[in-house]
Amino acid sequence: MPRLRRVERIAALTKMLTSRPHELIPLSYFCAYFDIAKSTLSEDLVSIRKSFETFSLGEIETVFGAAGGVRYLPVRRGKEAAEVLERIAATLADEERILAGGFLYMSDILYNWYWMTAVGEIFMTRFRHARPDCIMTVETKGILPAMMAARAFNRPLVVARRDSRVTEGSSIGINYVSGSTKRVQTMSLAKRALSAGQRVLIIDDFMKAGGTAKGLMQLVHELGAETVGVGVLVATAEPAHKLVEQYTPLLVLHGMEDGATRPHIEPQLQRTKEE
Amino acid sequence: MPRLRRVERIAALTKMLTSRPHELIPLSYFCAYFDIAKSTLSEDLVSIRKSFETFSLGEIETVFGAAGGVRYLPVRRGKEAAEVLERIAATLADEERILAGGFLYMSDILYNWYWMTAVGEIFMTRFRHARPDCIMTVETKGILPAMMAARAFNRPLVVARRDSRVTEGSSIGINYVSGSTKRVQTMSLAKRALSAGQRVLIIDDFMKAGGTAKGLMQLVHELGAETVGVGVLVATAEPAHKLVEQYTPLLVLHGMEDGATRPHIEPQLQRTKEE
Repeated sequence: MPRLRRVERIAALTKMLTSRPHELIPLSYFCAYFDIAKSTLSEDLVSIRKSFETFSLGEIETVFGAAGGVRYLPVRRGKEAAEVLERIAATLADEERILAGGFLYMSDILYNWYWMTAVGEIFMTRFRHARPDCIMTVETKGILPAMMAARAFNRPLVVARRDSRVTEGSSIGINYVSGSTKRVQTMSLAKRALSAGQRVLIIDDFMKAGGTAKGLMQLVHELGAETVGVGVLVATAEPAHKLVEQYTPLLVLHGMEDGATRPHIEPQLQRTKEE
Repeated sequence: MPRLRRVERIAALTKMLTSRPHELIPLSYFCAYFDIAKSTLSEDLVSIRKSFETFSLGEIETVFGAAGGVRYLPVRRGKEAAEVLERIAATLADEERILAGGFLYMSDILYNWYWMTAVGEIFMTRFRHARPDCIMTVETKGILPAMMAARAFNRPLVVARRDSRVTEGSSIGINYVSGSTKRVQTMSLAKRALSAGQRVLIIDDFMKAGGTAKGLMQLVHELGAETVGVGVLVATAEPAHKLVEQYTPLLVLHGMEDGATRPHIEPQLQRTKEE
């Protein structure tokens, strides 16, 4: 096989693998697609794996056996995770972002697909061993980080609504008390969105007192499923006591107490107990 | 340079280019990163371009001149577009998806990151010549296709809210009449989300009478910006007359008239005037 041919195949193989994170693709699929022997494919995969290791681009995992194959894991840790979280933290540390009620203007960050792709990969890396069957969040702003975590895990995304909509069919609703406003809120989920026994990873954009995350856990419980982790992009330092016991924030927000003029955001670079 | 080294570099280069669709990366960046001459990089890019052409994986575009560089365009047309739209259409053509009021249960499709990535690429391909500065939608379900269109274009996503929230800061609101329910609805957008003069591509998940899209166009107009296109994933065949004159649906939904038992969804594979 001429040299050029191999280089072209490597480019296509890399694109196809990385476009489908976490999907186990049978080796026979690629052998047929490129019309090559398994030994040739294995050599190609060794090269891609070595390249990805060298440049910290994620992991190429080969699973042996009848149900085996190869998959790309968009692992993002260490320097690759720190860089992203530090850039987001620096962008958020702007006094003009402070809104009434101790909130922070974050929409431009949450609607930035590139940062959310990276954030999804960081969540996947930190919750990898929780083996979730699906990722769950509540509208609206949690959808983006949750979607990208679902992408990194290659799992379905389930979105609870703040109200019950006609376009969802029959649903289960709960009432919960918002931890920060102390007001009663409602949340609902289409019954067909979640099956009993599923392992659910909850991802949200912001946690203050933890009422929303607690409400989501309650909804998971009502549907007979199990919460295997709670991840939030930003958690406030205060109140230190949240309504959920275990959660993994990627960023912690300080200085939103009354009268503060400038938020301070601290990236969480250490591994936590949940990892 | 040993042969293995080139193969590894091609894998890394492919991953780095395809992870940042539409971003023009200076050739000097890759030359420094891989410590190679510009001629070597050019040869690598020729190989990747040839591979992507062969396997219909998108376009590698080189821009010459001082502000030049290379970028990956996730173009998805022809068979690559048809396959995705036909699979989505087949999945949606299920009588159990019909909901009261002529709606269709689509959440599982809209929250499927893989299909939405492809849908975003199809929107990008069809609206490529509209050169939008940003992609706009309204919460909740339009967010996913719009986010992925924003990814394919590498442009910011702007999301209007159904109500005004404390976490958005000051906003502009409008009232509009829903085309299907004839009820007055409100929609708002944070003032800092959109600047005057910006070219806005509106993307939504579903269009029945077109009231929401018209409301979004009104919001764009109020903020001194310009709508350069309206794309929807699914538009109903009836009513044939929509409140917006020009729109591009990827799928057209038939058979949701009263008493229909089975939806029929027709992929729109032809190029439209807006392309």
